[in-house]
Amino acid sequence: MKGVYLVTDRELCGNRGVAAVVAAAARAGACCVQLREKTASTRRFIETAAHILTLLAPYRIPLIINDRIEVAQAVGAHGVHVGQRDMAPETARRLLGPDAIIGLSVETWEDVDAAQQLEVDYLGISPVYATPTKTDTKAPWGLEGVTRIKDFTRHPLVGIGGLDASNAAAVIRAGADCIAVVSAICAASDPFTATIRLKETIENAHLERGF
Amino acid sequence: MKGVYLVTDRELCGNRGVAAVVAAAARAGACCVQLREKTASTRRFIETAAHILTLLAPYRIPLIINDRIEVAQAVGAHGVHVGQRDMAPETARRLLGPDAIIGLSVETWEDVDAAQQLEVDYLGISPVYATPTKTDTKAPWGLEGVTRIKDFTRHPLVGIGGLDASNAAAVIRAGADCIAVVSAICAASDPFTATIRLKETIENAHLERGF
Repeated sequence: MKGVYLVTDRELCGNRGVAAVVAAAARAGACCVQLREKTASTRRFIETAAHILTLLAPYRIPLIINDRIEVAQAVGAHGVHVGQRDMAPETARRLLGPDAIIGLSVETWEDVDAAQQLEVDYLGISPVYATPTKTDTKAPWGLEGVTRIKDFTRHPLVGIGGLDASNAAAVIRAGADCIAVVSAICAASDPFTATIRLKETIENAHLERGF
Repeated sequence: MKGVYLVTDRELCGNRGVAAVVAAAARAGACCVQLREKTASTRRFIETAAHILTLLAPYRIPLIINDRIEVAQAVGAHGVHVGQRDMAPETARRLLGPDAIIGLSVETWEDVDAAQQLEVDYLGISPVYATPTKTDTKAPWGLEGVTRIKDFTRHPLVGIGGLDASNAAAVIRAGADCIAVVSAICAASDPFTATIRLKETIENAHLERGF
């Protein structure tokens, strides 16, 4: 998994709706979409997830559900992303099976260390920079943190938090495989062009890093 | 399922904690416990559920999880209770299998009618009376509503909403099999005695009804 990883935010998507923003990012070549719903009812979350799963299918882009394992199960999404206050990744693995994508947010070095023993598919370095989108996080990792994790962990890395086209390249050069963004796409006036721009920036940085 | 069905409320349980209130109700002979957490993180919800499941085991009292199917799966709870804005009962049945207890809240006659086709284990008549504990409900069913549902449905009935020892007997006589309470136990100064009193009231009303 390399490139642009979209994390949705219903409020930031505004009147155009989450599905329209996801569709634009998919057309523009996002590598992954994480549906994150913190206030929707379970039924609405499931309905939205089912709709977006159908929408992503032709692009073969995986749909990851934030936190809610049962929503992923209900619609047959490709995986889940869990934070340190969500279901333990071992339990998520047991419920979802070996083929599911399971991502885990790491906020402290203890989290990174513990993750070496876990069957997760990537670590979300959270947050790389401070962000107004998510306020319940710990101190930002910064570029040094990304490199320190890269040198230690066996897992692929997704940077998240305060990332956009202006700083994505540096985070890739520091060791991230993938750049997750919320507002850089959800709040963009043109999510399609915003995704294209991010994707190009990330691809160029990967080429500079030498793979 | 007949008798006192405790639905938990973390706030109303206060400093003594949800587990202490559940333990008291279990000792007093509650027939069922539904763990309802609307603000806890998924991890905390799972931890609480696991603890309460262990606590209930010696009494053989089933633990039902409100809304969150994945929490029930994670701990191996006996079932789930879903409302009309939660996961569809058919999906919950598919995920939990034939042996799980699945309860469904009915708020309108359309809900009651649709439930005839559903493999649910009971209907929660919600609310029987207006209640400050849950404010997103429709018009109260009242005793006439309970009887109307009893005469129509093939499912066992659990009354909920504004119920306590003063009105539980009337709801049983109207046709309910079980009385679900939140504040009548969670906010009681002595949850054990409150449960005993409710249980006796309900048992006497069942005897009057003739079974």
